[in-house]
Amino acid sequence: MAKQLEFWFEFGSTYSYPAAMRIESLADENGIQLVWRPFLLGPVFKDQGWKDSPFNLYPAKGKYMWRDLERICESQNLGFRRPSVFPRNGLLATRVACRYADEEWIADFVREIYLANFKYDLDISSREVVSQCISKCYDNSEELLLEAETEESKQLLKRQTEQAQSAGIFGSPSFLVGEELFWGNDRLEAAIEWVVRC
Amino acid sequence: MAKQLEFWFEFGSTYSYPAAMRIESLADENGIQLVWRPFLLGPVFKDQGWKDSPFNLYPAKGKYMWRDLERICESQNLGFRRPSVFPRNGLLATRVACRYADEEWIADFVREIYLANFKYDLDISSREVVSQCISKCYDNSEELLLEAETEESKQLLKRQTEQAQSAGIFGSPSFLVGEELFWGNDRLEAAIEWVVRC
Repeated sequence: MAKQLEFWFEFGSTYSYPAAMRIESLADENGIQLVWRPFLLGPVFKDQGWKDSPFNLYPAKGKYMWRDLERICESQNLGFRRPSVFPRNGLLATRVACRYADEEWIADFVREIYLANFKYDLDISSREVVSQCISKCYDNSEELLLEAETEESKQLLKRQTEQAQSAGIFGSPSFLVGEELFWGNDRLEAAIEWVVRC
Repeated sequence: MAKQLEFWFEFGSTYSYPAAMRIESLADENGIQLVWRPFLLGPVFKDQGWKDSPFNLYPAKGKYMWRDLERICESQNLGFRRPSVFPRNGLLATRVACRYADEEWIADFVREIYLANFKYDLDISSREVVSQCISKCYDNSEELLLEAETEESKQLLKRQTEQAQSAGIFGSPSFLVGEELFWGNDRLEAAIEWVVRC
């Protein structure tokens, strides 16, 4: 069995954008099997008493994060435009990603959503934008959207978010190697190294 | 004039320990002049509505941090023992460091305090422990302690902490290159690179 790295991510999360854009090639280079684990930060933040992103609740931290993210995107040659709405609600996109996490096109879809949010400042909470993102990697977007909107798909994401919390995840991006947790885009290399070493 | 990097740090801060242990050699290797800027996180956290370290207020984050710090110390070959009291009050040590920031022995003193707190689990809030740490790098510790306890030294640290807040600093370790702010032990390399590039 190939060595596994679980990538836990929320589409509204800023630092998850540079992580999502580089994780697949890093995993490939190291012969690591990547497991895509979309979840929702809302319930996780609520557990910590936050009704909004900590970057909005704590302005000094937020101001720093936007500048830091800008620098990181520049260093990764990633397009970046500060979203006019933050955090954006990625519920529908996350249901799609959760339902189809094992499909061949999942990496492309995840990147399309992040690019929509953080490069093109598009409203990823809208069904139309999610549909456009699917269309870039799969022929029949309506089929997937209808499936993502079933009660079963909703429950699937709910359970996955609960699983994130059980694993001690409190932010995005997070990386799990067995029970070993790594948090933050800046810990991706350490997580990869952990998989390689184990 | 040599290129400058300002190192803003609080003695109670966990991730500041690995940063403090490696910053001088990194700066030296890159021909950068290091400016030691001790400050207090208490007033900074208070401004954000926190009466304690966020690592205590948010247990999931705290649990992760201790494990993450352990991994980092291991990778840096740094001794580490989780302090039995956290966060420790570094007020007196910080007054000493602030008053004598330009002295030749400051780097050694800073490292001694961090080692006391995070390697030897010693009570750095005690005058005796601070005195022992001074003694490892300066002959007359009592002389420095008395000076650090003057009203002038107290005001010096108060102003420096206010200056940290004005500069947008919200955590430790922080690195300032002109007005460019970097936060976290994991941003030290980026800060160094920024100095070198500018």
